[in-house]
Amino acid sequence: MPNQSRKIPSKPDILAVTPGDPEGIGPEIIAKSLGRYTPGLPMVIVGQRRLFPSGIEATTIESLDEVGGRGAFLLETPVEPGQDPSFAWVRRAVDLALDGRVKGIVTGPIGKHQWWRAGIPFAGHTGYLAERAKASRYAMFFWAEDLKVALFTTHQPLREIFASIRRDRIVDFIAFIDSELKRLFGHEFRFFVCGLNPHAGEDGLLGDEEKNDIAPALEELKGKVDIAGLFSADVIFPKARKTENSVVVAWYHDQGLIPFKQLHFRDGVNLTLGLPFVRTSPDHGPARDIAGQGIADSTSMLSAIQLAENLVS
Amino acid sequence: MPNQSRKIPSKPDILAVTPGDPEGIGPEIIAKSLGRYTPGLPMVIVGQRRLFPSGIEATTIESLDEVGGRGAFLLETPVEPGQDPSFAWVRRAVDLALDGRVKGIVTGPIGKHQWWRAGIPFAGHTGYLAERAKASRYAMFFWAEDLKVALFTTHQPLREIFASIRRDRIVDFIAFIDSELKRLFGHEFRFFVCGLNPHAGEDGLLGDEEKNDIAPALEELKGKVDIAGLFSADVIFPKARKTENSVVVAWYHDQGLIPFKQLHFRDGVNLTLGLPFVRTSPDHGPARDIAGQGIADSTSMLSAIQLAENLVS
Repeated sequence: MPNQSRKIPSKPDILAVTPGDPEGIGPEIIAKSLGRYTPGLPMVIVGQRRLFPSGIEATTIESLDEVGGRGAFLLETPVEPGQDPSFAWVRRAVDLALDGRVKGIVTGPIGKHQWWRAGIPFAGHTGYLAERAKASRYAMFFWAEDLKVALFTTHQPLREIFASIRRDRIVDFIAFIDSELKRLFGHEFRFFVCGLNPHAGEDGLLGDEEKNDIAPALEELKGKVDIAGLFSADVIFPKARKTENSVVVAWYHDQGLIPFKQLHFRDGVNLTLGLPFVRTSPDHGPARDIAGQGIADSTSMLSAIQLAENLVS
Repeated sequence: MPNQSRKIPSKPDILAVTPGDPEGIGPEIIAKSLGRYTPGLPMVIVGQRRLFPSGIEATTIESLDEVGGRGAFLLETPVEPGQDPSFAWVRRAVDLALDGRVKGIVTGPIGKHQWWRAGIPFAGHTGYLAERAKASRYAMFFWAEDLKVALFTTHQPLREIFASIRRDRIVDFIAFIDSELKRLFGHEFRFFVCGLNPHAGEDGLLGDEEKNDIAPALEELKGKVDIAGLFSADVIFPKARKTENSVVVAWYHDQGLIPFKQLHFRDGVNLTLGLPFVRTSPDHGPARDIAGQGIADSTSMLSAIQLAENLVS
């Protein structure tokens, strides 16, 4: 039976969710999300029922072929002794995604260094997913209803970002983000580009990256990408928030994430661009210190599930 | 009469206000502030009545000796032909402050490069005031009810800030801010110190300034200054906002001003530390594009006046 039905095209696309660190709040916020919301497609938690001692509104299955329709399922996925469970679950979710029927993965939070310490050579989900998907390029994108931020550089020392601020790389990056967003969301976005220096360099008085590389790159993109302009980073975020379907391009981690997290610490979503499947995650860590107390806020996880569902369907 | 009364000590301290760019919104937001609020001390606008064609609730005077009590006065201050009026008014306000009876100055906004273009060798108010006051050190501080930010570096290219991140300079800076705040506000503040790199360097993986200079400087300050800790800059601002009488130390312009302006674009106040008189200003420019239309928002100017008044009295 399973094999027979495997290729019937009417079977709906599946969204996978991984619990992340089993000792963190991941399982709790997944269960809470399902208490607040019934997925409009089949959502498969790749994990173990023992993670949900207070129960979860999901039907346990042992194979994707048992997925019956919309709603939540729990794909029981045992972990071999010595294996990091958060990694085992993500690996299975990626296997399923690369196999084709799982169209999106929402990853629960893992701790910094958690995988490194377990001997898994990836700093976090994004790098692992990109390697598995053989993505030649990918980018971290932060999504909230009123603010979207693309990061040009991510986890590197601040003093090392300057080498990347090159006209050709900027053109490539913005064109890449633009095409990924069109592919995923199905419509155009308007780009608000941060200055790198105070006051966007103030005509070269406060830095020359804007004059030498950023402004020429934007000039080159004109007619191809909808560029609202290059703005001082301390005024750009309110401007972008007033503009529907806008994206802020930030040059480094804190430039984009200070304002994003200030507004969306509770409900921000991390979306990876450049993968052959949708990938979202809540924009926070596993918060082991409050795990198991029933007090974790599931808003960001629920937003991550809903965004992934929208992008998949 | 004026000369006789000059040294009577019971005369109240005076707050001076300068209009800034006469073609900007400065005069309008001063007049609007006085429509919303009557100063609790004598407030003297150093400018010209012609700036207020729609009137202003202020008594015109020609000398400080005519100041009668609390409320607003307009010290008619003509400008010589060829002089930049915004500079002439500030210069007179500083003369009066250095003379002793004016205890604070609120400066209306001037345009970028406005003074440079007029041949005045200062990029803005702060540098001029520091030079006139012979201040050996001074700092830009941003004040709002729920968020205070001290900037370690201000208007310089981002790639040039790294040379300043030195343990001894950090110790000096934070001790200076701490002592200035105690002097002006009369109580202790708690310091939240930003990481320079993503995730505050993540134990050296993402940059070494935290390990080599910032953390050792904070260690050295322990017992002298109330340091809440060194935190990743993308989570520190919400933390600080939850703590009364807290200050965030930001290493560069955008790190501090992106979150400050995101929350306090309308009502933020710029306070200069290190001067022998109080100096505040609204945290926005002269906005010539909307001047004269009666639509300018006076909230930031009113906050600047009220903060200066509190600090003077």
